[in-house]
Amino acid sequence: MRKARMEAFSDGVIAIIITIMVLEMKVPHGDNWHDLSPVLSVFLSYVLSFVYVGIYWNNHHHMLHTVSRVTGAILWANLHLLFWLSLFPFATGWMGENHFTPVPTALYGMVLLMAAIAYYLLQQAIIRSQGPGSILKKAVGRDWKGKLSPVLYVTAMAATLLSGWIAEAIFVIAALIWLIPDRRIENVLPGSEP
Amino acid sequence: MRKARMEAFSDGVIAIIITIMVLEMKVPHGDNWHDLSPVLSVFLSYVLSFVYVGIYWNNHHHMLHTVSRVTGAILWANLHLLFWLSLFPFATGWMGENHFTPVPTALYGMVLLMAAIAYYLLQQAIIRSQGPGSILKKAVGRDWKGKLSPVLYVTAMAATLLSGWIAEAIFVIAALIWLIPDRRIENVLPGSEP
Amino acid sequence: MRKARMEAFSDGVIAIIITIMVLEMKVPHGDNWHDLSPVLSVFLSYVLSFVYVGIYWNNHHHMLHTVSRVTGAILWANLHLLFWLSLFPFATGWMGENHFTPVPTALYGMVLLMAAIAYYLLQQAIIRSQGPGSILKKAVGRDWKGKLSPVLYVTAMAATLLSGWIAEAIFVIAALIWLIPDRRIENVLPGSEP
Amino acid sequence: MRKARMEAFSDGVIAIIITIMVLEMKVPHGDNWHDLSPVLSVFLSYVLSFVYVGIYWNNHHHMLHTVSRVTGAILWANLHLLFWLSLFPFATGWMGENHFTPVPTALYGMVLLMAAIAYYLLQQAIIRSQGPGSILKKAVGRDWKGKLSPVLYVTAMAATLLSGWIAEAIFVIAALIWLIPDRRIENVLPGSEP
Repeated sequence: MRKARMEAFSDGVIAIIITIMVLEMKVPHGDNWHDLSPVLSVFLSYVLSFVYVGIYWNNHHHMLHTVSRVTGAILWANLHLLFWLSLFPFATGWMGENHFTPVPTALYGMVLLMAAIAYYLLQQAIIRSQGPGSILKKAVGRDWKGKLSPVLYVTAMAATLLSGWIAEAIFVIAALIWLIPDRRIENVLPGSEP
Repeated sequence: MRKARMEAFSDGVIAIIITIMVLEMKVPHGDNWHDLSPVLSVFLSYVLSFVYVGIYWNNHHHMLHTVSRVTGAILWANLHLLFWLSLFPFATGWMGENHFTPVPTALYGMVLLMAAIAYYLLQQAIIRSQGPGSILKKAVGRDWKGKLSPVLYVTAMAATLLSGWIAEAIFVIAALIWLIPDRRIENVLPGSEP
Repeated sequence: MRKARMEAFSDGVIAIIITIMVLEMKVPHGDNWHDLSPVLSVFLSYVLSFVYVGIYWNNHHHMLHTVSRVTGAILWANLHLLFWLSLFPFATGWMGENHFTPVPTALYGMVLLMAAIAYYLLQQAIIRSQGPGSILKKAVGRDWKGKLSPVLYVTAMAATLLSGWIAEAIFVIAALIWLIPDRRIENVLPGSEP
Repeated sequence: MRKARMEAFSDGVIAIIITIMVLEMKVPHGDNWHDLSPVLSVFLSYVLSFVYVGIYWNNHHHMLHTVSRVTGAILWANLHLLFWLSLFPFATGWMGENHFTPVPTALYGMVLLMAAIAYYLLQQAIIRSQGPGSILKKAVGRDWKGKLSPVLYVTAMAATLLSGWIAEAIFVIAALIWLIPDRRIENVLPGSEP
């Protein structure tokens, strides 16, 4: 019961986040193809964020699958994750409207980093609540994706000192790592997919 | 479980899309009937998009009815469909604010086309997951509506070179094809309704 | 199943409508109490619409309680109702920003009228689907509230020719009629509460 | 059934409230770190409101857990609570954009106060519906948090006459009181946690 409502609330918040991001793409005033060009970078940053929020929704969904009892710690760790996800529209809009210049790109990386940390804290809260023999702990395994991602976000933030585009490339790679299924690796490192 | 959450998330996203489209109808400053006239074309484009999103929600709903196991491919094909649907408010607003001029109308047609392709890919992902004897494959049948729609959208996009209004007429016809129940045809071509 | 999803979708749309109406209350720039005064009439129109949307959600909820099979006609009658409800934020904002002047107040009445008609059509679609001995038909009874409301909305629209405030008073009365429980009347006219 | 739908609707409204508050953080035009500084106070007020809405969602969720029958009074008391919560985005935006000056801070306190009163009325409606031996009445116990909070909000509103910052400190303390679990106190005052 309690879990169903936490899932429903999270789904609601994530659905709204993913949808209001599109409001940052302001309808241009002219009616020619070239009037769309200022919207293009906002569109690209929207695509990137849509994929990230999609990955979070997907992983959140798998992770909660293992939960049977929702504790106060899990509830607040979940709200903490939703808080950082709720900053995606702002960070996405700022980065897109400024055509991927360094500072907004670094802020975007910071929001990605904080969301990754919040996701890790939620994961730990669930594992702690499940005690020894936690299903989630076993499923997460070495969690190489979960450990690599924050390193990539920090690297991208540092890379903005050189160029915003290198940072964007790192964000795309970090997203692809989550998107590409790693069944072969899964067999070697059981449960590497959170 | 997994399917229920995918449905709930999709419902949430579609509900938000259908509702935020109305935000493109900006409240006019004057308080006379003629102050509403610039809003009229945004209103008409809103009606058209409301019907299209309603059709998608309706069909999505029928299609998922046949799903028993949600695979990773289905999850991402579903998010891909939601992505294109999320561009409806932008395309609707641009077309409406520019009074159905050719370029915004062509972009609208492109978003309709991409959503139709995304719907087709989701349908294929479900059919593949169901293996031989797929219930959905049988239900879809020859899928003449699903095949005709993209042709109509491309035709409408080409027609904008002549006039935006011809394109609009084609969009209306394409929507009506989905709205009008075809029970008699259903008997001849079983399962033509996705 | 089908009904659960229609309810969930309707709840989503109504929840969004009721919440985005508040966005019409634009945050004022000054930071004194008198800076709130231009927002006051938007606030009052928001209160009125919040109550109306609350009444619709409440009644919709009771009405769907009697439904066991969702037909295509019910689905589309429901979407038609949601369409008119989705125009509440626009009509509310226009009326509020213009301090209840006649024309925006008349438009507001028109949206109320169309929503009432759409509600009636949904009710009829459900009754028709239930065949003779329809539970809803019995529950609705003489439906004096459902019949009186449209008359009041039309009266209010006409009254705007005299004064916007008379119309507002009628809208308030029409809302109160739905809010005040009529248990005694219920016993005389069984099932007058839809 | 009825309760599930009331919960789902409340979750939807609260999810939207918590998410649209972030829209008050307008994307700045420049692309330097110092361009973020005007957004900082909006961000801080957003954090405060996110925590408050999170607390409300959490408590609402616990409180409804004890409900088995939803009466008309409960439905409307719940809508009344959602109404005051829906004013959080406006009050948060006004306070944040004016850098926590006295008047917007006092209005924020007033919205907190009204929401607390609405929560109390909902609690009473549920207790009344449960009759003698109400589970909720027992769970609520002396309700010292529920009684202290309104006092703190009124104190904060008065404190704005001296300084907005004292009021903010009181809002933070009032939130912390709800956040910090009080298991030891619970044992002494059974059921102090609503």
